[in-house]
Amino acid sequence: MEHMSPGEFRKWGHAVVDWIAVYQQRVEKLPVLSRAKPGEIRASLPPVPPQTGESFEHILADIDRLILPGITHWQSPNFFAFFPSNNSGPSILGDLLSSGLGIQGMLWATSPACTELETHVLDWVVDMLGLPQGFKSAGQGGGVIQDSASSAALCALLAARERATGFQTNERGCDGRLIAYTSTQTHSSVEKAVKIAGLGRNQLRSIEVDDRYAMRADALARQIALDRAAGLQPCFIAATVATTSSNAIDPLPEIGAIARKEGIWLHVDGAMGGTAALCPEFRWIHEGLELADSYCFNPHKWMFTNFDCDCFYVADRAALIKALSILPEYLKNQATESGAVIDYRDWQIPLGRRFRALKLWFVIRHYGVEGLCKHIRRHIELAQQFAVWVRQSSEFELMAPAPLNLVCFAHRDGDEFNRRLLDRINSTGDLYLTHTLLSGRVVLRLCVGQTQTELRHVENAWRQIREAATAIRA
Amino acid sequence: MEHMSPGEFRKWGHAVVDWIAVYQQRVEKLPVLSRAKPGEIRASLPPVPPQTGESFEHILADIDRLILPGITHWQSPNFFAFFPSNNSGPSILGDLLSSGLGIQGMLWATSPACTELETHVLDWVVDMLGLPQGFKSAGQGGGVIQDSASSAALCALLAARERATGFQTNERGCDGRLIAYTSTQTHSSVEKAVKIAGLGRNQLRSIEVDDRYAMRADALARQIALDRAAGLQPCFIAATVATTSSNAIDPLPEIGAIARKEGIWLHVDGAMGGTAALCPEFRWIHEGLELADSYCFNPHKWMFTNFDCDCFYVADRAALIKALSILPEYLKNQATESGAVIDYRDWQIPLGRRFRALKLWFVIRHYGVEGLCKHIRRHIELAQQFAVWVRQSSEFELMAPAPLNLVCFAHRDGDEFNRRLLDRINSTGDLYLTHTLLSGRVVLRLCVGQTQTELRHVENAWRQIREAATAIRA
Repeated sequence: MEHMSPGEFRKWGHAVVDWIAVYQQRVEKLPVLSRAKPGEIRASLPPVPPQTGESFEHILADIDRLILPGITHWQSPNFFAFFPSNNSGPSILGDLLSSGLGIQGMLWATSPACTELETHVLDWVVDMLGLPQGFKSAGQGGGVIQDSASSAALCALLAARERATGFQTNERGCDGRLIAYTSTQTHSSVEKAVKIAGLGRNQLRSIEVDDRYAMRADALARQIALDRAAGLQPCFIAATVATTSSNAIDPLPEIGAIARKEGIWLHVDGAMGGTAALCPEFRWIHEGLELADSYCFNPHKWMFTNFDCDCFYVADRAALIKALSILPEYLKNQATESGAVIDYRDWQIPLGRRFRALKLWFVIRHYGVEGLCKHIRRHIELAQQFAVWVRQSSEFELMAPAPLNLVCFAHRDGDEFNRRLLDRINSTGDLYLTHTLLSGRVVLRLCVGQTQTELRHVENAWRQIREAATAIRA
Repeated sequence: MEHMSPGEFRKWGHAVVDWIAVYQQRVEKLPVLSRAKPGEIRASLPPVPPQTGESFEHILADIDRLILPGITHWQSPNFFAFFPSNNSGPSILGDLLSSGLGIQGMLWATSPACTELETHVLDWVVDMLGLPQGFKSAGQGGGVIQDSASSAALCALLAARERATGFQTNERGCDGRLIAYTSTQTHSSVEKAVKIAGLGRNQLRSIEVDDRYAMRADALARQIALDRAAGLQPCFIAATVATTSSNAIDPLPEIGAIARKEGIWLHVDGAMGGTAALCPEFRWIHEGLELADSYCFNPHKWMFTNFDCDCFYVADRAALIKALSILPEYLKNQATESGAVIDYRDWQIPLGRRFRALKLWFVIRHYGVEGLCKHIRRHIELAQQFAVWVRQSSEFELMAPAPLNLVCFAHRDGDEFNRRLLDRINSTGDLYLTHTLLSGRVVLRLCVGQTQTELRHVENAWRQIREAATAIRA
């Protein structure tokens, strides 16, 4: 089979675009959570690959026939599970251009526009969210797009590890003395990073939280003192702006003061919640962020930019670069040697990198800062409306503060009832929620953040939840 | 600004597809290496983001106006630098569908088709390349798509680290006794992984190579014995099937025998070279691979699948999963608990994951196994033709064996001449080569692997190289 000609690409490209446009319209009617059984999708696929090429018409038809039954529709306006992973037309098209250009951005020299647009747009985002100016590239800091907040946390931890040891851990390996701090509510990616980086889980302290599920700064300070007294070396604190479980917001001013006083790297994970700072009235969530060494949030969660796009900032880019840099002969070039350029290879785990700034640039330009703010504000309003309904209900109760777009709630009939309720709701296909545990109790989570979610979807969710509860009690 | 409507998406989607189709036709005429100066692209961008939304027409026009001058055209048929990063129509469209569906594949439950298609296609690829059956998911092994060979090497190292220490390094951290082995020619990503994983660069042994730049198995065995005698714990060997510098192929049967005897994890990096095994006559490159614990190669380099798509295989998936697994409450679900499904979250560093199997599936189906083999064979023929010209020339010489699609060569007038030659060639914009050092000498690399590269492009490259040499001597 020959390469697809530009003419064929045009024809089939239009067909795929049309398929997506239709999908955007019908996704609301599809069962949100896939009903496929384990192994069912595989069983429908041919056991061996085709020896000769197939027509694109046939390939595309299989998306409906074989793939859609196994899709959980993250773009459905009835998707309220986990965190959102929303997308948008301009983002999809920016990503399409990235695929079509097919360049590598590992070095400035391998496509200057890839590096410079990324630096530029990430500087824009600092102002859009009112982040500390120290994260901008004009000073000692800078931003980079990572694939995920997990990778951002790992990079932050590595920079922290190296800074704490005079960049000697890269040479000599971990020595068992380095200690990292999270709260009991911190995302699991930090525990994963601590294992990957060779510190070991035993060197990770889970600091207790207050009744709002936010890290207790006094407990953090106490633990650091204990560790220092034991001859250990505190090197990394991970705080969270809106935890995954319940959107708890760790007290950055207090934690930051401790980090500064103790000389410990403070990383702040704003994976979903950070986006709220587009709206001036929610910028308080980042109060104290100027004390942080690094920060990340994910436009691929709640800013209409399809995965992957995590914006990761450091206040001192030299520490990050020194922790991650390698320079084999075959990557040497005049631009790198001049010192006048950024080579993003040294800001991340992988070497290769895609032109991801295009989609973020397209999103910001399509919506404008005000447009983005308007949509985010609307999502928060919808979640707050839902919280009001829960609060007013006699059957249900709020299980945590709901500062942003996530509502944690439960039926008053207890854990077993709530588990049955969740299964029943999700089995309808009409909406999809997930759960967490808070203070040992089973809690349902409703997170508003999909591009197409409107009031009627949240109203419908609330109605279905109540009807399911009634049916179980009957 | 409102969300882009399905109708607008259709209109602008067609426009972007058409832009890419035109790009595919004109890329050959564009200067391969961007001529932008540091800061030039940024200087053309507005200092602040737009407050209100802009028209998509305006956004798209800026691709030509602002971005293209800063692009180094990896898809040009005159791109012979580094390794290829080729793409194709079916791949771009598979990736477009992935963006449009916008699902997360972190768990089986979050879209069963994403996981099952990936497992299925990676099993196909085992047969397509004639890889060991032990890498298939039906037994103890399995495949997963990573973003890059760098991440695959890191995951392999982490599994090796944990297996060697009874999965205790995850708990207690590195202890300074673990040793890893590469050759002096191994890709820098392994050194980076050794640092990230907390072993430390001092614990990485660079084994000397033979006159073909392949790892010397006898030297490896000697070094392992020395380390054991010193009370250290050898845990990881990284071998390469076609090194980045020169396409050297490490002797897997000998290295594998040592790894088995010593109980050391053997990872084999076939990032570019592995694709050659599509053709039965090149399967010898993988001889001995059945002795490896893990293997990767990159369809995003030389198999017409746009970045990112690295196929990573392990012979014992349990070791990998145990090394990388985390399970917070909010990710628990019945399918995971049943044990009947794969959750790829535990096979990689990040949590989130894109539906990358779609593009690989599209590529395999569009070309068929025979079609892919035909194009790869043709690339190798072109490189071999170039090697013949070099060999027959009195001015140039081959600097390493050229078993596949990369030719390392140099002008006989020495290092300084070759550096000037490279600069002169690349400044024309008519082609792009990069260099390496072999045995301390400056060597030019010509790598054939772009989708549209034909005989006439390689002929033109050879003509231009000779003319540039003549001009410098004059």
